Amino acid sequence: MTTGHIEVLVNDWQLLNSADSPLPFYASQCYSDTPLPKEALRARYRYLDLRREALGDNIRRRSRIAHAARCFLHDADFCEVETPILLRSTPEGAREFLVPTRGAPHTLPTFYALQQSPQQPKQLLMASGVTDRYFQFAKCFRDEDGRKDRQPEFTQIDLEMSFVSGSNQAADTAWRIGGTEVRDVTEGMVRAMWHATDLKHTPLPKDSFPTYSYAEVMQKYGSDKPDLRYGLQIADLCTAVQGDPQFALDLLVCPQYKQDNRELKLSKRQIDQLLVGKDGQPSTIEHFKADRKDSPSLASLLTRKSSHLRHIQPDCRERIDALSSALHSHLQSASIYSGTEESPALDRCDVFLARRVRDMNGGSTEMGDLRTRLAAAFAQQDSSVINANPQILWVTEFPLFTQADEEKQEAAHGRWTSSHHPFTAPALEDVGRLQEALKMSKPSKQLIASIRGQHYDLVLNGNEIAGGSVRVHDAALQEAIMRKILELSDDETNRFQHLLHALRCGFDRFMAIMCDTASIRDVIAFPKNASGADPLFASPAVIEESSAVTDREQLAPYRLQRQI
Amino acid sequence: MTTGHIEVLVNDWQLLNSADSPLPFYASQCYSDTPLPKEALRARYRYLDLRREALGDNIRRRSRIAHAARCFLHDADFCEVETPILLRSTPEGAREFLVPTRGAPHTLPTFYALQQSPQQPKQLLMASGVTDRYFQFAKCFRDEDGRKDRQPEFTQIDLEMSFVSGSNQAADTAWRIGGTEVRDVTEGMVRAMWHATDLKHTPLPKDSFPTYSYAEVMQKYGSDKPDLRYGLQIADLCTAVQGDPQFALDLLVCPQYKQDNRELKLSKRQIDQLLVGKDGQPSTIEHFKADRKDSPSLASLLTRKSSHLRHIQPDCRERIDALSSALHSHLQSASIYSGTEESPALDRCDVFLARRVRDMNGGSTEMGDLRTRLAAAFAQQDSSVINANPQILWVTEFPLFTQADEEKQEAAHGRWTSSHHPFTAPALEDVGRLQEALKMSKPSKQLIASIRGQHYDLVLNGNEIAGGSVRVHDAALQEAIMRKILELSDDETNRFQHLLHALRCGFDRFMAIMCDTASIRDVIAFPKNASGADPLFASPAVIEESSAVTDREQLAPYRLQRQI
Repeated sequence: MTTGHIEVLVNDWQLLNSADSPLPFYASQCYSDTPLPKEALRARYRYLDLRREALGDNIRRRSRIAHAARCFLHDADFCEVETPILLRSTPEGAREFLVPTRGAPHTLPTFYALQQSPQQPKQLLMASGVTDRYFQFAKCFRDEDGRKDRQPEFTQIDLEMSFVSGSNQAADTAWRIGGTEVRDVTEGMVRAMWHATDLKHTPLPKDSFPTYSYAEVMQKYGSDKPDLRYGLQIADLCTAVQGDPQFALDLLVCPQYKQDNRELKLSKRQIDQLLVGKDGQPSTIEHFKADRKDSPSLASLLTRKSSHLRHIQPDCRERIDALSSALHSHLQSASIYSGTEESPALDRCDVFLARRVRDMNGGSTEMGDLRTRLAAAFAQQDSSVINANPQILWVTEFPLFTQADEEKQEAAHGRWTSSHHPFTAPALEDVGRLQEALKMSKPSKQLIASIRGQHYDLVLNGNEIAGGSVRVHDAALQEAIMRKILELSDDETNRFQHLLHALRCGFDRFMAIMCDTASIRDVIAFPKNASGADPLFASPAVIEESSAVTDREQLAPYRLQRQI
Repeated sequence: MTTGHIEVLVNDWQLLNSADSPLPFYASQCYSDTPLPKEALRARYRYLDLRREALGDNIRRRSRIAHAARCFLHDADFCEVETPILLRSTPEGAREFLVPTRGAPHTLPTFYALQQSPQQPKQLLMASGVTDRYFQFAKCFRDEDGRKDRQPEFTQIDLEMSFVSGSNQAADTAWRIGGTEVRDVTEGMVRAMWHATDLKHTPLPKDSFPTYSYAEVMQKYGSDKPDLRYGLQIADLCTAVQGDPQFALDLLVCPQYKQDNRELKLSKRQIDQLLVGKDGQPSTIEHFKADRKDSPSLASLLTRKSSHLRHIQPDCRERIDALSSALHSHLQSASIYSGTEESPALDRCDVFLARRVRDMNGGSTEMGDLRTRLAAAFAQQDSSVINANPQILWVTEFPLFTQADEEKQEAAHGRWTSSHHPFTAPALEDVGRLQEALKMSKPSKQLIASIRGQHYDLVLNGNEIAGGSVRVHDAALQEAIMRKILELSDDETNRFQHLLHALRCGFDRFMAIMCDTASIRDVIAFPKNASGADPLFASPAVIEESSAVTDREQLAPYRLQRQI
């Protein structure tokens, strides 16, 4: 036909297989303007759901993009090596899957563990010198409690290079840590994958992706994986204000706090932060206030883990003018529209004020979390507030050690943990401070928190899509870090396997962005649901007793039995 | 340097890491003419062993060859789809790995199972129409009892095409079953992989790989995966002999059996088979007789599962001449030298005689097994008896059902099992006979055994490197096969998951051949040993009790405990 489609004229036909009964739903009737059948139903009949053009396209796209990445890496002389999925169980086993093995009766049960990441075999492979450029599309497994959009099994592109350059704090460029070769390869690969999609994505920036330090993104965006598709920059009050910051603070918090007979003083130990919301129609905030079903209320935006957050609406002209003038330089970057030339009018904005600790640690601040929630709420009402162009950036110079990661605290028992993993090298500039800390019997929190690592994350539209680090290659330094800073026991040190942070869902997450879909389940042919179950294959399942074999007999070879 | 190597003149150097103590062994001292350190030691220090050039080359070669296969398949419009590794446990679970999952206390324990092959998700994927050309480098898992050179986890290239052509028994070509498109793609892929190796392999045949029927290879080579790099063809006595076969039989077995007052009569129900060994130096057989350590004794060649085998050395000139004349046409193909023009002199040969059942079933005959052992024994003394050129062939027209596979009999309880898997389509020519059998209440063994399937294996140098089949697409026929021929219970039929035969170690085995190494462990970076253990990571292991958590507490979330 003129459209390029082909029309077939049927002379004769034969029905090979007929459907006995109506299907649970019809992919051909899932139009883009009607809601899809319920997720649970579609999961149960995944093979019917896969008939939907949009979902099928994602699976086909995944194949092409994975191949583009592989071709790029092979052309760059990388060697793909498969590492074992059946690995060794470790004492911190709560988060890993155990695989019992058969054995003689009355001996202790033994287990494999499914690999959480190829970290250990990969390191040994690099040490063996088989290749100085390794990669793998690695299947990884985590037995995590159900969280939205985490899969118990997921795919990551794992790569490693030997003999990369060291850190260069004197360099002109923003990339001042080591491993520029890894940066270049990763950028090339991401470009190759980007190029392989059939969707009309705006091209990535032609130059090297911008690099930010952890300190900078935490201060400006309150997050170590900021979404730069919108503005809403955060500023420290003292820096943002032209003039006397205490005067500006008084202007902001009055009259709210004067009524309580409270005064807000600038803190020496904490920093007052400022964020200005959308210069929108007055209806924006009205929506929040009305607490409509499809729009979170302002109260809910503020109360979720927001002990220090305050929402301010200056209400008198004099005060507004004074504030507008004092905050003039901040207002432009604080608009939700990124790259806008105009400053929003303060009286049509929502101003938010918060405090944060001076030494930042962890993945986000309260203000940063608010920034994300505000943008989502604004975008729900007007999607144009989010820039359509992809925003990709590197974040580097993370603190080497942290006490703020909730996930890790469980195993850490109050000790310091590695922000990335215990093999990450310190920044060249901070080696002196690390050595100093190692010599002290009780180094100060501040000293340890100030040591930066040679760790980098690649962030796309607010999602961490890749991350890595330059490794410690000095065995003595490695052991000192483990024993003196991380305070690992002999057992933990011997195992070298703890608190391991590897990128979760790396390739799956990247594919979800490439396919413009919110859920990684839409880029996996047969995914598990949020609680880790597979409704299609009905797994996991109890071991069914057949006529011949009882449950007890089936567990016996593993030297296990049901808990009594 | 003139050799192309680079010599480095050192001005200055710095030792970054020193080895504290002597290494267990030195890869640089593993010369080709000295025996390697013991396998257990090399497995324990795999990262040192990987420094050996030969082993490292294999791992690098694997990467290149896998990429060549992927590129070929992508160019042929195949779509790579990852299927779940965590799948559902089935009642025949003894051979699969179970993965316990956490859950509420006092509920029944639930399990995933690690995929044995992507069979089920793959079929559903094809049914969904996401692609009509699927492939995957699939990680598969079998909890098998330790066997030499089987890995509990292994890699196979799994591919499937929709809408392939049906069987064509009238065709001129030897490929008379369906799925010629799969044959062509597989041949193309194997050629691409062959081409990607750096080893100087003799090229594969330019034409399509030769196709043999199961009946032909079983009759000529006594194996469904014959090694054609040597001759030693087997012949039926009645066909091989020019003249009276009973006369030839008398010539052969005398005087041995005359002494026992026994006579050997040609059997109607069984077939007498004949194989002639190497036309060698007399020393060959002397070696066997001497029972040297490095050479199996003739007795050991014959007694292993060889109830019907007889070894004959005609000892009188008159008898030799008469036999040479009667067996003239057989002698040439029965020489170990494949493609030789000359017939061996019978008095310098060993003649072997055996009986086999008329209707063949299973993977090999006694004579076929002897053929393999004889060739290995001859080759140990003179490697030139094995043709250096790779010998690749297709085997088709297998019997659809079997009662001879030892591995399957355990689960079969005396029933028929599928030679390949229960979804294999019958040959077009045999559909009538299958329908006939389905109508009978007790179809004869002979009738069922005569039905051939659309199943094909690719055999390289005596190793099955690929295999597959055209599927049944008629649900009624599929169910009839399962219920009436295979006699599966409701439970088994519902699960569709039993007696599953998928190619074991497909890609690993292929790589071992490409790398000229006997063991698949030499083409896997971190393999498991023969008992499924990994001495490097010391897995599987007992769950170690740490100070904080006891073994009992660690098992509790799975609702399991140690067997009491």
